[in-house]
Formats: sequence, C-alpha cells, structure tokens
Amino acid sequence: MSRKLIVQKYGGSSVANPERIKRVAHRVVEAKRSGANVVVVVSALGDTTDELLQLAAQVSDHPAERELDMLMATGEQVSVALLAMAIHALGEDAVSFTGAQVGILTEGTHTKARIVAINTRRLEPELLRSRIVIVAGFQGVNTNQDITTLGRGGSDLTAVALAHALHADVCEIFTDVEGVYTADPRIVPEARKLAAISYDEMLEMASLGAQVMQARSIFVAKRFNIPIHVRSSFSLREGTMIQKTVRAMEDIVVSGVTLRRDEAKITIRDVPDKPGMAAEIFRDLAAAGINVDMIVQNVSREGSTDLSFTVDKGDLASTLRVSRQVSRRIGAGEVTTDEGVAKLSIVGIGMRSHSGVAAKMFEAMAKERVNIEMISTSEIKISCVIRKIHADRAVRVVHRAFGLSRAPVRGKKAALVNA
Amino acid sequence: MSRKLIVQKYGGSSVANPERIKRVAHRVVEAKRSGANVVVVVSALGDTTDELLQLAAQVSDHPAERELDMLMATGEQVSVALLAMAIHALGEDAVSFTGAQVGILTEGTHTKARIVAINTRRLEPELLRSRIVIVAGFQGVNTNQDITTLGRGGSDLTAVALAHALHADVCEIFTDVEGVYTADPRIVPEARKLAAISYDEMLEMASLGAQVMQARSIFVAKRFNIPIHVRSSFSLREGTMIQKTVRAMEDIVVSGVTLRRDEAKITIRDVPDKPGMAAEIFRDLAAAGINVDMIVQNVSREGSTDLSFTVDKGDLASTLRVSRQVSRRIGAGEVTTDEGVAKLSIVGIGMRSHSGVAAKMFEAMAKERVNIEMISTSEIKISCVIRKIHADRAVRVVHRAFGLSRAPVRGKKAALVNA
Repeated sequence: MSRKLIVQKYGGSSVANPERIKRVAHRVVEAKRSGANVVVVVSALGDTTDELLQLAAQVSDHPAERELDMLMATGEQVSVALLAMAIHALGEDAVSFTGAQVGILTEGTHTKARIVAINTRRLEPELLRSRIVIVAGFQGVNTNQDITTLGRGGSDLTAVALAHALHADVCEIFTDVEGVYTADPRIVPEARKLAAISYDEMLEMASLGAQVMQARSIFVAKRFNIPIHVRSSFSLREGTMIQKTVRAMEDIVVSGVTLRRDEAKITIRDVPDKPGMAAEIFRDLAAAGINVDMIVQNVSREGSTDLSFTVDKGDLASTLRVSRQVSRRIGAGEVTTDEGVAKLSIVGIGMRSHSGVAAKMFEAMAKERVNIEMISTSEIKISCVIRKIHADRAVRVVHRAFGLSRAPVRGKKAALVNA
Repeated sequence: MSRKLIVQKYGGSSVANPERIKRVAHRVVEAKRSGANVVVVVSALGDTTDELLQLAAQVSDHPAERELDMLMATGEQVSVALLAMAIHALGEDAVSFTGAQVGILTEGTHTKARIVAINTRRLEPELLRSRIVIVAGFQGVNTNQDITTLGRGGSDLTAVALAHALHADVCEIFTDVEGVYTADPRIVPEARKLAAISYDEMLEMASLGAQVMQARSIFVAKRFNIPIHVRSSFSLREGTMIQKTVRAMEDIVVSGVTLRRDEAKITIRDVPDKPGMAAEIFRDLAAAGINVDMIVQNVSREGSTDLSFTVDKGDLASTLRVSRQVSRRIGAGEVTTDEGVAKLSIVGIGMRSHSGVAAKMFEAMAKERVNIEMISTSEIKISCVIRKIHADRAVRVVHRAFGLSRAPVRGKKAALVNA
C-alpha cells in the first residue's frame, strides 16, 4: 500500500454518547478524505465498563475472569458498531471488527492478557479497498478462541500493536487533553504543550503521574519505533509527538515537571549495617505484591542506617505490616510512615549530557524554602520527595527555573513534529 | 454420552435483571444436579435490545445491517457471561459461548440469517467434562466470520438447532406462560393447559395468535423430531410437550381455540368471473410484499363475484392501494375495507378423522347470535371471521362446545407427556 496509513485511537470519554460518536465519525472521515487509509480503535462508551462490572457484582461475589472478559468485551463491540454506522451516515465506507475477528492473539491470564500476535489477513483486503476499518480496543482472543481483555490502557495497546502490524505511518491517540505538557496546567498556568518528546521521557512521565498514556503502550511503541501523536479529540490543533530521539531534542535539557501525591513514605530505623539487610526487606515486600517506588538509604552511622522508601498509598497498610515483621526479624528499629509527602520530578533526555541540572533544581526549591526529604535519580530524571503542602509552589518554581514556559524556536519545533 | 442431555432456553423476561438471572441459575443447577447434562440458551436482558436499537437510531437514520448485528449480538453476550457467573456462585462448573465461538454457521441476510450448520466440536468436550454450557441465543456467524443475528424468535431457533446438533433428549423453552392453553385464559377463565400438542397443531396455533413460540422454530423441531417442552420460568409445574403425533392424541378432536384481532378484511366487488382474475390480484399483492391470510370467493352471480381476503392491519394502506389499481385494470368494482373483524379458529389434529366438527362450531356461534362473515378450513383447523365486538364471547362458547375445559383422563395425560 502506497497510501499513508493512520491508526487512530479514541478513548471512552471521546465516545461517551451518540453526539460524541458522531463527532469522532467526522474526525475519522476528515482523515480519510485527506487521502490516508484509516484504522480506528475505540474504547467502550463512557461508563459502560463500570455498569457491566456492577452487573457482575450483583450475580457473583467472585466472578470468573474468563466470564468477566466475555462480559467486558461487549462494551467495545457496541462502540465499533455505532461508530461504523455514524461513518456510513457521512457517506464513507467503514467496517467494524471485534478483537477476535481481527485475530488479536493474546496469552496470559484473563482480564490482563498480553498481545502476542496480530493476524492482518482479515484487515489487509479491507484497506486495499480503502475502507475505514474500526477495531474494538482492549480485547483479543487466546488460542482456545476464548475472549480476553488487556487490562488498563488496553485500547492504547491495541492501537500501537495494530500500527506495528500494519506498518502504519503514525498512531494517533485521541484523548481529553491537548498533548503532553511541561507541567500540569492546573498547577502551572504557563505550562507549555510539548511539540515532541522521546519514548524514554514519556515512559518516565507516564510512571511519574502524567495521565496521558500507560507506560505499557509507550514501551511497545518504543520497541517497534512507532511514532505516536497524542492529541485532543475536541480540537484540531497538533498535540505532542512521542518518538525516537531526534538531534534537536538533545538541546532541550528538561522536558517537563511532574508531581505525584498518591505515594506514602515509610522509614525503617536502625537497620543493621551488614550485607543482605536491604535484600531481605524488599524480597518480603515483593512477595506481598507491594510495588516499591523510590528507595533511599543514608550512609551508616554507628553500625546502623535508616532506610526510606515510597509506595502507593493504597499499599500502605500491608507495607507497614510486612515492614514491621521484617524489622523485628532482622533486629532493626521502629517503622514510621508519612502520608504528607509528594514526589516532584523533572524529566529530560538532555540531562544525560548536561551537568548542573540537579543543582539548579535543588537551588530553585531552596530559594522558596522547600525542604527536600529524599532524592532519587536516573539517567533522564531527578525525583525529590517534599512536603505535600509545598508541592504546587515547588512545581511552579522548578518549571520557571528551567524556562519551560518559553516556546522553543519555531524552526526547531517544526523539525521535531515532522521528524 | 449416555447421560440425559437437556437444552434449556430462557427468554429476555426470564433474565431481565440480576435477581432473575440468579433464579435462572438455580433452575439450571437443579436440572444439572438431577443428573442431566445441560446446555442453556439465553436471550438478551429485558429491554437491552430496544436500548441498543435506540443508540443506533441516534447515530444513523439507516444503520447498516451488518453493524446492527454486531451491535445487537452484545446483548446475549452480556447474558451468557452473567449467567455463567451466577452458576459459578452456586458451585457448579459452567462456561459461556457466543454464537461465533460455538460455530453456529448462518447464511442469508444480516438481521434475519438462517442457521445452516452447528459445529459441535467446541461443545462436546465441555459436555464430556459435565460442564454446564451456556450459549448466546439469536446469533451466529457467516462464512466470512461476520456476526449475524437470526431475527424474531431467534433464541428459540438457536435452542432447537442445538438440541438437534447435540442429539438432546428434550428442548425446554422457558417463558412467562405455563404452557399452551386450550384458549387465552384472559378470555376463557376455565381454559386448560394442554399436556401435549402435535407440531402441526402448534404450527397452526403459532400462526393463529398463540404467542408462545414462533412458527419458524416449531417447523425445525418438527423436521428433526425434537420434543419441545414449553414451561414457565416462574413455576416448577410441567408445561406443554410439543411433539410428534402420538396415538392418544388422535382421540382429541380439537386442541384449542385461538383468536386474532390484528387482521383487516378487504373486499373487491364485482370481479369478472373469468379465469386468471384471482391470480392477477394476488400476484400484485405478493409483489408488494403483502402477506394475505384468508381468502374467500363466493360463487358467481350474473357473471361476476365478490372476493374477500384478510391481511395484517399494518399492511392495510398498501393493500388498499394495490387492490384499487388491480380492480381498475381488470374491470372489477368497488374496494371496501373492514377493521372491525376478528378471526376465531379451532385447531385439532383429530379433525382429520372426525366429521361434524365444523357444524358443531358454527352451531355454537349461531346459538349466541354471532354472525360468521368468512370461513376457511385446512385439514387441522377451521377459521371464521366474525365481528370483533363478539370475539371474546364467541371464543368462550366454542371452547365450551368442545368441552375443552374438561381435563383428559389421567392415564392418557401421562401417556402424552412421557410419549
């Protein structure tokens, strides 16, 4: 196929009711009439998923996962049929498919299956005929022909996987935000939409609290080098391209500031300073299914050290229980928790080659008398745990310190978007 | 399989909400624990079908039928998943399937496809493991793997076709009535539930206004000789067996009295009494898609005759238009219509070998001064068109004249049920 191929994905809020479905239909038809072939992935209508889960809860306390998948998959099936009808009403040819019909083969457990292959045999003839192809997101089928679902962020994954299987030119993720911003605009009014961001930066952003896309789909996009365009379904403006590093990007030291408020800090006092102590603690936490985020261990004083780490607030109770058990066993001291914290991070691929980034960040916060309680760094991010009450102010000063509200030079921006 | 195999079908009102689904689950589990293998066919929850059609109407004035099928099929998929969960909650093993997964292969147009084959390869291993198998009614898949639906009465058809493919011992149709009655109990309070009825009688009953099952499914059941048990999902009592003629049945002259109020009578006056006139009229009506029910032509007087027939009230306008055109063309007279009519019928396989049945029927009505306007007979039924205002009274006197409220001899009844 020599025509351009676009995969578009619309989330549940974009197709929440018939009016919005019609708007999406217009959007799809526009892309089609611009000369491209279009494959559309849709999620379930608005609250459908919750409604179906409620029905399940009313007939069973512990619904079997195979049957939950059977039930949930109907949500996206409704969406694809309605979108096809709405596109027909605009005079374009369109055809809808379930995950099973498209041959989205999955493995792993029900309700969070993994895509292992997509059989494009059914889709390719439709694209050759220039029909708009509409695929139910979030779902697939296992080798037993049982319906499976992909778990959180599943429709994004369907879109990215289809873009890879069909060698699409771009995968457009339509959402209710305009793109990826240098910071949350509700906190930093002068926050600027990024024209482009690398996969690695977006991965850090995603896991750090930017609610645009799940890390899982970005990881797949990175692996297969699929350019992703995150944009708003309510505006025609360009959004943010997520793509491989391009040269111009290197000049941008910091791409954005993110904030998470839903973590809690745990400290285990007086951990004996001998090999294997940390391993013992985190092995027990892992065994309890607890996901630990930042870990900081201070240097030893008088044969023992304090160990601090953060977890999701929802895991706090179980974390405390496990930590107390292990603390007693290894002869450590008191376990304390702190829910009054927030995690502020700066993310930027340019950090790799620029020194002084951390110093600039810390200095900005110091000037505003924001105390830093924990620090953790990776190649492309620096995270600080601070008091939650200072969080918004800290995001603003750090955003300002790195000059993030200044738009980049026009030529550079264009280069990024079209790279 | 040497175990007894029962196919059960539950309609939309039986699974209208989670409470009712749980009740159906109990019913299924009871059948299972009585030692049988059970295959369950379910319709969509209560009003789901209407809700989905409304959604479609909001995005398109003329939704494509392929997409309508894609949409509608989700209704039964929700039902099968929820029923499986509810059965699990009672501690029994159950597994749900869509029409596509079960391999219900159809042909013909979307929204009213015909079942051509059922591939039992996926179901048989489940039954060998004694799992309860739950199948989405009303739907199938064509050779292109597109989802199809079977139209009105489709779930009954799924049940009967599965009963045939799996060599089931009986197909139980659960509905909101207790079985097939000698007359509508709302009109004739002493109407009696029939223990058994033949396929042919039931076919006449179905097309004559008894709302229990569509003629289509009974026809398939007759063809493959599948015993059908029509019974209530709200009671444990035996319902009515629909089956091949058994000897004892022959003794019952008339099985029931039916009434239709939704027909209209059309009369074409002064049709020239020469060959080909009737053919010309009914060819034109058929070409306009009008289904004609009763036709009566009186003997000729002075070279012309009056021709009367009945059609569904919904077709009255188009019937009148076509009839006037053809009347002008063939040189016939005035065309009149009459909506104040009702059609009363008696149905009974025993009529074949009993004379005087018609006389008894007419006499009963004459005594009550009910005038008969049209008469039409077949081997196992007699239909009369009468004034609608007399209809209820006429049903009661005819019911009484044939002694239909008397229960048959006990031994005979048992013989019928277990035949």
